[in-house]
Amino acid sequence: MSVNENPISLIKEESKIAIISHMSPDGDSIGSILGLGLFLMNISKDVNIYIDEKLPSRYDFLPGSQFLKVYKDDNKKFDFCFVLDCGDADRLGHNQSILSKSSTIINIDHHISNTNFGDVNIINTNMSSTCELIFSLLKNYINKLNKDIATCLYMGILTDTGNFIYDNTTANTHKAVSELMEYNIDINIIVQNLYQNKSLNSIRFLGHVLNNFKILFNGKAALVVVTQELLKEYDIELDEIDGVINYVRDIEGVEIAILLKEITDDEVKISFRSKYDIDVNDLAKRFNGGGHKKAAGARVKGNIGTVENNIINQLKLDLGW
Amino acid sequence: MSVNENPISLIKEESKIAIISHMSPDGDSIGSILGLGLFLMNISKDVNIYIDEKLPSRYDFLPGSQFLKVYKDDNKKFDFCFVLDCGDADRLGHNQSILSKSSTIINIDHHISNTNFGDVNIINTNMSSTCELIFSLLKNYINKLNKDIATCLYMGILTDTGNFIYDNTTANTHKAVSELMEYNIDINIIVQNLYQNKSLNSIRFLGHVLNNFKILFNGKAALVVVTQELLKEYDIELDEIDGVINYVRDIEGVEIAILLKEITDDEVKISFRSKYDIDVNDLAKRFNGGGHKKAAGARVKGNIGTVENNIINQLKLDLGW
Repeated sequence: MSVNENPISLIKEESKIAIISHMSPDGDSIGSILGLGLFLMNISKDVNIYIDEKLPSRYDFLPGSQFLKVYKDDNKKFDFCFVLDCGDADRLGHNQSILSKSSTIINIDHHISNTNFGDVNIINTNMSSTCELIFSLLKNYINKLNKDIATCLYMGILTDTGNFIYDNTTANTHKAVSELMEYNIDINIIVQNLYQNKSLNSIRFLGHVLNNFKILFNGKAALVVVTQELLKEYDIELDEIDGVINYVRDIEGVEIAILLKEITDDEVKISFRSKYDIDVNDLAKRFNGGGHKKAAGARVKGNIGTVENNIINQLKLDLGW
Repeated sequence: MSVNENPISLIKEESKIAIISHMSPDGDSIGSILGLGLFLMNISKDVNIYIDEKLPSRYDFLPGSQFLKVYKDDNKKFDFCFVLDCGDADRLGHNQSILSKSSTIINIDHHISNTNFGDVNIINTNMSSTCELIFSLLKNYINKLNKDIATCLYMGILTDTGNFIYDNTTANTHKAVSELMEYNIDINIIVQNLYQNKSLNSIRFLGHVLNNFKILFNGKAALVVVTQELLKEYDIELDEIDGVINYVRDIEGVEIAILLKEITDDEVKISFRSKYDIDVNDLAKRFNGGGHKKAAGARVKGNIGTVENNIINQLKLDLGW
């Protein structure tokens, strides 16, 4: 099939369909599998939306979340498997085994790193998000769109663009959002569930971090160190703290923000954020990690104090600081 | 002139023009006076953009900011005075005296409370922002628009909609932003200047506040108390701290967030934020203040401890808490 053909046109009432995305789901992966899933339920009677693990609870409010299920390896075969927002089949986790049960794999994504692992590959790196790309594919079927589908797609665009301000946001992104809003989606409900439902402990923790992080290299770097002990003190989980790095990046003069999370006594997760021109993808590669120019990370073995020293030394070497 | 007529059509090359907005300028007032000002400079040779006080430094990067000046009462007369984003002539501060020097006052605003003080009043409460409204008036003159004008108008829409997520954001808002982005405006520069340039002290202060605020009424209210002593400890100004109230509003279960700022030993500025259905405009009125349903405030005489007690008692009375 030509890349320019719309794969939606392949779907018939009797088509057996699986829809999957990457592990550790984010807003765009969840919005796209639900949005496309709800849409395809208008056409086919056998639409299966599989999630690798549990849906993070802040997404429970989304229309269609009741249809999400975990794949049981039951020898069910599929005519089509839609793989959304997933650059590499290895990131599918448990759901990767669905690929070999599917006659046609339709790979729809906006990541430049996509490995084109599908039988059909619709990769458009000009799109802010997979949800924006999905919406462009569904626009030929305007009478089958509705508020529920629009809500899911809007949510994915919202989260993948950092509320429409990351530099993946284009004129086309806002045009798509404008068209989605015509379906009378309730922004308040989306915003309340995603952003205004934080745990008290996570806010107290944020307070502690912002009062205690380190400033390095005359203010050009900011470093947040999160130990297991600190997580226990505030009774929060590792996955609740990712946002803190953005606060220290947003300080005047800070060019790189670094977050170290102690996974175990001997393992540390590193996150880097860059504000201006420094490419933290290059920096993350030094630690066998990767990502994008302005956001990257790595997972390394070692004591958290040692890892901190190694990073500081690497910054001195690479940036001449 | 009919309200439906476009006042831009009145402007001639020889027109003497003043453009002003409210005291304590915000993103929308600054974006609209600069955006309209730069546009009118294409037509008229005598365009004067007056700001009441100093431009807050985070807006210095904006195109046209070099044209901003403070009005000296020099008996200069104007053919037209554009008053933008200002609900009431009393909020013009020092610039109010320009009104009596102007033949035609053109009042352009999106606030429902606007008192229609102009000779021409273009009040459209369906618009997210005055910048969105200005853009709708300039669209007839598409060949006179450019990147600089679009940057100013985009910035005003961005800030008045809280990055496009407040409930004043409409399908038309995103459509307007999409059209503005076609002028190749640089979102990164705007975001870096507005949001990623915070003082280290203000972030340390935010940390202190989030680690120390009070939870009341079983988690339904969150209270932040900022004394003069605390401001001194962190060496920051009162106007740097407004954002903190949003962080405590965004906690699970919190319905009202309250911020008390000690102006003097005997005066307190109160801010209220509501997340769901409680109307804090009603609450603010109890203290001779006002605002909107979800964001309101007041200024009261009294010791900050007494004011705190009064608010708690009022919440008990009004909400039965």
